[in-house]
Amino acid sequence: MPYVNIKVTGGKEAPTEQQKAEIIEGVTELLQKVLHKNSETTVVIIDEVDMDNWGIGGKTVTARRTMK
Amino acid sequence: MPYVNIKVTGGKEAPTEQQKAEIIEGVTELLQKVLHKNSETTVVIIDEVDMDNWGIGGKTVTARRTMK
Amino acid sequence: MPYVNIKVTGGKEAPTEQQKAEIIEGVTELLQKVLHKNSETTVVIIDEVDMDNWGIGGKTVTARRTMK
Amino acid sequence: MPYVNIKVTGGKEAPTEQQKAEIIEGVTELLQKVLHKNSETTVVIIDEVDMDNWGIGGKTVTARRTMK
Amino acid sequence: MPYVNIKVTGGKEAPTEQQKAEIIEGVTELLQKVLHKNSETTVVIIDEVDMDNWGIGGKTVTARRTMK
Amino acid sequence: MPYVNIKVTGGKEAPTEQQKAEIIEGVTELLQKVLHKNSETTVVIIDEVDMDNWGIGGKTVTARRTMK
Repeated sequence: MPYVNIKVTGGKEAPTEQQKAEIIEGVTELLQKVLHKNSETTVVIIDEVDMDNWGIGGKTVTARRTMK
Repeated sequence: MPYVNIKVTGGKEAPTEQQKAEIIEGVTELLQKVLHKNSETTVVIIDEVDMDNWGIGGKTVTARRTMK
Repeated sequence: MPYVNIKVTGGKEAPTEQQKAEIIEGVTELLQKVLHKNSETTVVIIDEVDMDNWGIGGKTVTARRTMK
Repeated sequence: MPYVNIKVTGGKEAPTEQQKAEIIEGVTELLQKVLHKNSETTVVIIDEVDMDNWGIGGKTVTARRTMK
Repeated sequence: MPYVNIKVTGGKEAPTEQQKAEIIEGVTELLQKVLHKNSETTVVIIDEVDMDNWGIGGKTVTARRTMK
Repeated sequence: MPYVNIKVTGGKEAPTEQQKAEIIEGVTELLQKVLHKNSETTVVIIDEVDMDNWGIGGKTVTARRTMK
């Protein structure tokens, strides 16, 4: 019955459909293995966040990627 | 003053503008009726989540809809 | 399959066990009625937030309640 | 190490790239100043929410903007 | 840089300190393996939710556990 | 009308009542100044997260504080 929300950068860094399926399967298995949670009712939601809308260290990811 | 966040599947399963208005009105009334909360400051945010990004039972909704 | 998160003030304003059950039942029914969502897999999580930790209009709820 | 999520209306009311950068910088500085948190690991995520999907006072923002 | 939030039932069903450490390690590794995300900046937050405050199928988990 | 959620470590690192009031006031002012948002309806919720429940770099904050 757990609920999981995963936020990653989107746009050109967005995960593929295949990668999203692997993450959903992997997290669900992990919670089943470690906490014995029922996989059938485990919910996972992935949010893809625009790089202009994600900040770390006081700067947007867009600005950080440009600086490198 | 309550804050409510509702996540539903989007894309071709997305709620219509009318349905979203009904949900917002209905949740706000429910909290007023049960908890006597001030409707004027009740906030409701609806997120429409892509079916590739929503997993249940270890699989994406996209994969589950295809299996049926 | 919807996921709902409801935040209300806790502490001495916290909803009772009965009120929480009514809210969970009411929101689940509303989503079934308006969006034809499967009630069996609808998840509702209620967070009770301390009045020192909730701000509106730039002030904590604790401060606002005192002012009245 | 704090995590901050800010939701604002999007669409024609969406913040510009410059405004998003200012908010990310401002919140990060505030948490550094008040709580002495390490700015380098402070994460800020801004969500732009469609006006049909945001309700306040039991009505969508779309409906409220029209009424004025 | 991903951000992960995991909600599980708390109280007498709460994960142990050891289980929480395993979940944090496991999710971080999964995102590193599948998406090549930097483990050093991956954030995972676990919320333990009271069984009165978690509803599924229109009933609280407390009520469902009692029915069994 | 913005909604802001801030998560910081709790327990012995928890912000004081005064610090929480300053953060709520500061974030509300920032959104008013940068985005011209109405302060009266800006909502800020602060979550204090147990150090066993917060992971970064694959380890709990509890484990990281001990290593130092």
